[in-house]
Amino acid sequence: MVETEACSPVPGLAATAEVAPVQVVLAALADPVRLEMVRRMAAAPDRTERCAALYDDIGKSTASHHFKVLREAGLTERTYVGGVLHQRLCLDEVETALPGLLTSVLTGLSGAD
Amino acid sequence: MVETEACSPVPGLAATAEVAPVQVVLAALADPVRLEMVRRMAAAPDRTERCAALYDDIGKSTASHHFKVLREAGLTERTYVGGVLHQRLCLDEVETALPGLLTSVLTGLSGAD
Repeated sequence: MVETEACSPVPGLAATAEVAPVQVVLAALADPVRLEMVRRMAAAPDRTERCAALYDDIGKSTASHHFKVLREAGLTERTYVGGVLHQRLCLDEVETALPGLLTSVLTGLSGAD
Repeated sequence: MVETEACSPVPGLAATAEVAPVQVVLAALADPVRLEMVRRMAAAPDRTERCAALYDDIGKSTASHHFKVLREAGLTERTYVGGVLHQRLCLDEVETALPGLLTSVLTGLSGAD
């Protein structure tokens, strides 16, 4: 069960940042590791996935760096599910700030399968 | 007068590449110099602008590199206007390949003014 409302602040974690300017969002998305993280979150229930399920061939600290870049762009937030830290894709917030961007990227990614 | 049809091959220049996969397009857009080039092309008549009007504080060879990245992503093509080399934004082609992406980016950029 997801214990937080959609992209609301999580007690004990920093409040979700606003969606960053489009330049910052593009830079966050323009990395194959982060793009795959975003794709997996988008495909997960509640767009929320445990951290370790979001990457394959990188170390934990590298993954943490990528999570931070995504979070600081306002694309994701941290949340807890069953007491375990997860990452959630803030799809609705990004769609409101930059309509069409993330859905277009996700559609482009699924077309590449 | 623009001497070529929209994003058609220009005699003497390489044919326009297809729009690249979304990962490549994102990487091409995720650079402030290239994003400004795209913004200026989008604002120009026929989305076509002479090269030197598309950048300010970089050298010609750096600009050429950026033009190449945009072109190889399928975002732009080279065209001649009055015998002078211009760059044209292939907005319609990109919209067809990745609906919403470029318009969302351009809207995001104009909102940042």
